[in-house]
Amino acid sequence: MACESEKWVLMVTAQTPTNIAVIKYWGKRDESLILPINDSISVTLDPEHLCTTTTVAVSPSFDQDRMWLNGKEISLSGGRYQRCLREIRSRASDVEDEKKGIKITKKDWENLHVHIASYNNFPTAAGLASSAAGFACLVFSLAKLMNVKEDQGKLSAIARQGSGSACRSLYGGFVKWIMGKHDDGSDSIAVQLADEKHWDDLVIVIAVVSSRQKETSSTSGMRESVETSMLIKHRAKEVVPKRIVDMEEAIKNRDFPSFAHLACADSNQFHAVCLDTCPPIFYMNDTIIGCVEKWNRSEESPQVAYTFDAGPNAVLIARNRKVAASLLQRLLFHFPPSSDADLSSYVIGDKSILQDVGVTDLKDIEALPPPPEIKDAQKYKGDVSYFICTKPGKGPVLLSDKNQALLSPETGLPK
Amino acid sequence: MACESEKWVLMVTAQTPTNIAVIKYWGKRDESLILPINDSISVTLDPEHLCTTTTVAVSPSFDQDRMWLNGKEISLSGGRYQRCLREIRSRASDVEDEKKGIKITKKDWENLHVHIASYNNFPTAAGLASSAAGFACLVFSLAKLMNVKEDQGKLSAIARQGSGSACRSLYGGFVKWIMGKHDDGSDSIAVQLADEKHWDDLVIVIAVVSSRQKETSSTSGMRESVETSMLIKHRAKEVVPKRIVDMEEAIKNRDFPSFAHLACADSNQFHAVCLDTCPPIFYMNDTIIGCVEKWNRSEESPQVAYTFDAGPNAVLIARNRKVAASLLQRLLFHFPPSSDADLSSYVIGDKSILQDVGVTDLKDIEALPPPPEIKDAQKYKGDVSYFICTKPGKGPVLLSDKNQALLSPETGLPK
Repeated sequence: MACESEKWVLMVTAQTPTNIAVIKYWGKRDESLILPINDSISVTLDPEHLCTTTTVAVSPSFDQDRMWLNGKEISLSGGRYQRCLREIRSRASDVEDEKKGIKITKKDWENLHVHIASYNNFPTAAGLASSAAGFACLVFSLAKLMNVKEDQGKLSAIARQGSGSACRSLYGGFVKWIMGKHDDGSDSIAVQLADEKHWDDLVIVIAVVSSRQKETSSTSGMRESVETSMLIKHRAKEVVPKRIVDMEEAIKNRDFPSFAHLACADSNQFHAVCLDTCPPIFYMNDTIIGCVEKWNRSEESPQVAYTFDAGPNAVLIARNRKVAASLLQRLLFHFPPSSDADLSSYVIGDKSILQDVGVTDLKDIEALPPPPEIKDAQKYKGDVSYFICTKPGKGPVLLSDKNQALLSPETGLPK
Repeated sequence: MACESEKWVLMVTAQTPTNIAVIKYWGKRDESLILPINDSISVTLDPEHLCTTTTVAVSPSFDQDRMWLNGKEISLSGGRYQRCLREIRSRASDVEDEKKGIKITKKDWENLHVHIASYNNFPTAAGLASSAAGFACLVFSLAKLMNVKEDQGKLSAIARQGSGSACRSLYGGFVKWIMGKHDDGSDSIAVQLADEKHWDDLVIVIAVVSSRQKETSSTSGMRESVETSMLIKHRAKEVVPKRIVDMEEAIKNRDFPSFAHLACADSNQFHAVCLDTCPPIFYMNDTIIGCVEKWNRSEESPQVAYTFDAGPNAVLIARNRKVAASLLQRLLFHFPPSSDADLSSYVIGDKSILQDVGVTDLKDIEALPPPPEIKDAQKYKGDVSYFICTKPGKGPVLLSDKNQALLSPETGLPK
């Protein structure tokens, strides 16, 4: 290691999206390597509205690996962090920064410590797959810092060991996580099916539900399903393989009716497996499903797909912007904000859809007409915390603007 | 046909119980004969609290078949009624009433009409399997009237054609409906596994839920499941056969932990299949499941089994009377009656359990302590309409007391 002084700090900042599965991952065949029992397919969400930003820094002055999440220091001792750090370190290459006069050899990395700062641009613990974006960003930024020469697929296999669905956040657009066959997990990687421009009509509305109910974590939930559900094996072996083929075809052909049918059916089947678990797991909320099903049935072909992960938030995918406006209108009718809310924090993300609905203040929401397809349409005031309007988005990117770094270039500590 | 005058009326009155499946029937392989895709097992409920009473009458003065349900005339033109009437008529034998001087030959029955009056001793349309008790009672009483010599198993195959689960109401105690193999359904019959005295510790509490939500009828629901669920076939072919064997064993050995485990798992799997249906079907209510699961887990072995049919009512089976009192105490804590209720109509059936709980008026309910195993135990006032306390009960019986007949012995019309 050659450098002018021991005071240097070398940093990389990256941004990584979150993703939502439309053919679900539920059940591991290997708990520690995080190898799934079936393939899954996801849509990457626009990082402008939902993403993790991570700065990783290295300096000879750091005496241990440290990490800060949303400004608060957290422990890196967990097996998942350790595994990602070890896998990336073992693939590090020589790094040279001529301007700063820094040279790090492959061997130096073994003795150098890193600082990691990570930040989610969306509320944490809202059940919005923050661990997927988080581990993807950790692996992607460390790989850039340490000049890891593996391709994105290999990196996805490392991110997978942090959080299964993280592997799918290494690409934009439409992504398949191939379950793989090998015991070491080397072929359990993500591949891109199509980028985000391939099908750019789609608009996504996420209803973040105000549920205080204690939920089963997805890690323990899927373990219990694998151990006790009599249906999960049949799903993984007999149902999902065909759905994967059909979903790839639907995405390739931008065939929304097939896409919607498969996404809704697979979300429901995943929750059916949860219910078939002993004790049963209840994640989702059926009110929104009822609204969407009734609307889709009243139209000639499906307008909106719904999908729920291991939590009560609904992810709704509208076939285009016009439909998204009708969807948001229906959602705002059924789920008006509580009286003390303000509109600008009730609908976030791409707020321009709100203009298409013709809603500019809370009184406009009160005046919305009920959906014509529903008799005695009910209102559930306060059941939704807020809506996020977004769309399919791009994969990880490096941020070159130094102002976006989360660590100080002098100290390597959070700004 | 020989008789003193054309004015005679010959009548039979019978009482038949309802039943609750603990291994569920869901899905037909033949819609018109009502042949199921798997065996099922049920517990017959005590007719003292839940039963149908039916009087059937024949007279040469009747010019058509007529039926009254709970005092209101209903049409008999439906295929299910027609099929039961035809099947019983075709098996009619000679009948002679020497005292009245009536003689009906086998052949006469073809030209004689019947009047049927049926009455449920529990609220109709409360999702309490009134059609099971109703068709069982219709078939049983007509068979007695027409001197049908078939055994109870054969009668069950006729009742099955009125409503699938009706076949299980022809016996008391614990009953298995064998799916059968023949295309004509002749071997799709019910058999008694054990009578109600075999396991008389069990106490059953039914929570009738105040749900106004429109439900999918079980006929159309199971048709949609058979057509669209990817899991139902696997359940019927691979899961249920083993569960039937295990449940028979549990009943035989009065093994409550196994009984409870199987009943709860099978109820949840049935609802999982409903959720896997397209569009998904939501029947049950998860609040009560959560309470029971937490309680069972806090004890050394399960105290209470829960099972839900195609509706939101919970059927809870307590291992004995002491447990039933603890159960009712928990249920009354979580689900107090609305303010205008009176206790005598809030807990019906075997009210003596209420004394074991120490509840004699509504204030006692307010003073109930929260269940120790639940943190921040919530109350859901008004969510339950009423509770029925009952137990496993006997099969169909003839009522010889003429006062219990629902038709006038002179006119053959409702009293």
